[in-house]
Amino acid sequence: MENNISQAVIRRMPRYYRYLGELLENGVERISSKELSERMQVTASQIRQDLNNFGGFGQQGYGYNVEFLYEEIGRILGLTKVHNVALFGVGNLGAAIANYVNFEKLPFRMIGLFDVDQKKKDRIVGGIPVMMIDEFEDFIKEHRVDIAVLTLPKDAAMPVAERLVSLGVRAFWNFAHVDLMVPDDVVVENVHLSDSLMQLSYNMTGR
Amino acid sequence: MENNISQAVIRRMPRYYRYLGELLENGVERISSKELSERMQVTASQIRQDLNNFGGFGQQGYGYNVEFLYEEIGRILGLTKVHNVALFGVGNLGAAIANYVNFEKLPFRMIGLFDVDQKKKDRIVGGIPVMMIDEFEDFIKEHRVDIAVLTLPKDAAMPVAERLVSLGVRAFWNFAHVDLMVPDDVVVENVHLSDSLMQLSYNMTGR
Repeated sequence: MENNISQAVIRRMPRYYRYLGELLENGVERISSKELSERMQVTASQIRQDLNNFGGFGQQGYGYNVEFLYEEIGRILGLTKVHNVALFGVGNLGAAIANYVNFEKLPFRMIGLFDVDQKKKDRIVGGIPVMMIDEFEDFIKEHRVDIAVLTLPKDAAMPVAERLVSLGVRAFWNFAHVDLMVPDDVVVENVHLSDSLMQLSYNMTGR
Repeated sequence: MENNISQAVIRRMPRYYRYLGELLENGVERISSKELSERMQVTASQIRQDLNNFGGFGQQGYGYNVEFLYEEIGRILGLTKVHNVALFGVGNLGAAIANYVNFEKLPFRMIGLFDVDQKKKDRIVGGIPVMMIDEFEDFIKEHRVDIAVLTLPKDAAMPVAERLVSLGVRAFWNFAHVDLMVPDDVVVENVHLSDSLMQLSYNMTGR
C-alpha cells in the first residue's frame, strides 16, 4: 500500500515528524488531531487522511500517542537505519551541508567529502578531510555510500552523477541547478534554490 | 485569475523558466509542447494545462515562441523588477546563500548581511560587509528590503522574524527549521533541508 502514496502526502510527513519530535522534547505524551492540526496549520481531517495512508495511528476521541506516532513516522520515512552520505563539491554550500548533516539528530552520516580543487585536499570540513574526486572509486569499494550530495556547478553535476551511478550509487540529493537524467532505479531529491526563490517572488506579486 | 492558481502549478513554473532560459542560450527560437515535454519529463497536456492558467501562449500545431514564453513566465513569476534582499545569520549556509543570490542572473540583489556575532562585523561576504543585527532598524529606514533570508538557528528565527515584520518586511525566505508564524499578509517560502532529506530517505526505502 505504501508504494502508491502521493508525493504531496510524503512532503507533509517530515513536518509531522518534526512537530512530534518537538512535542516529545517538551514531554507531551498525547495529542488530539485538533491540537496537532492547529499547531501545524493543516486541517484535522487532512492529518487523519494522511495517516490513514499508512494504516492510521489514532483512536477516535482519544488522540494520538506522541511517541508511538513519532516512531512510526520515523519508520515510514526510513529513519530506522543509518544512511551513509558522500558529498561532491566542497564550496560554501557544500561546507554548509556537510556541517548540517552531521549536526542534525537524523540518522544520516557524512563519511566522505570530495572536490576537484587540489588546494582543498585534506582540509577539514564538518570534522572530516576533503578528498580528491579521483579517490572516490577506491573509497566506494571500502565504504557503503547510500546517498551522494551534489553541491557542484551545473555543468559538473551530470558527468559526476553518471560516474557515481556506474559505481553503484542509487540516491542523490541534488543542489545543482539541473534536473539529473538518471536510470529509473535511482532516486533524486532536488533542492533547487532558484526555483524556491522564484516561487517566493511569484507569491509576493499583488501584495 | 492568476490568484487562484494552485501551488503545484506555481512549483512547475520556475522549471519551465529555467529550461526556456537554457533553450534561449542555445539559440532555440521555437519549441513544440511535445519537445518541451520530453525535455522536462512532464506530459505535453500538463504543460498546455499549466500555461492555460495564464491564458496559454502557444498556437495549435505551431509550438511556443521560446523568447516570448520565457519573458511571459518571467513576468508571471515577478521577475521584471529587482527584489532587494537582506540576510540574517551569516554562518556557512548564510554565506553560501549570499554568494548564490548575487551570482545568479535573477533579479534579486543582496543588499545587507546581518549577524549577532561581533567577530563577524565588517567581514566581506559575497561582496558586502556583515553588519550587526542591531543596525537593521536604521538600515531599513534608508533601504527598501523586499525579502529577508533567515539562515539562523531555529530558536533565533522566530524572534528575528517578528521584529522584521514589525519593521515592515513582508516576505521571508526561511531556512531555519521552524515553521514561522506570521500575519496573513506576509509571504514565507520555506527551504527545510531536513524535510528534503527525509523525503529522499522515504523514496529510497524498498529499492
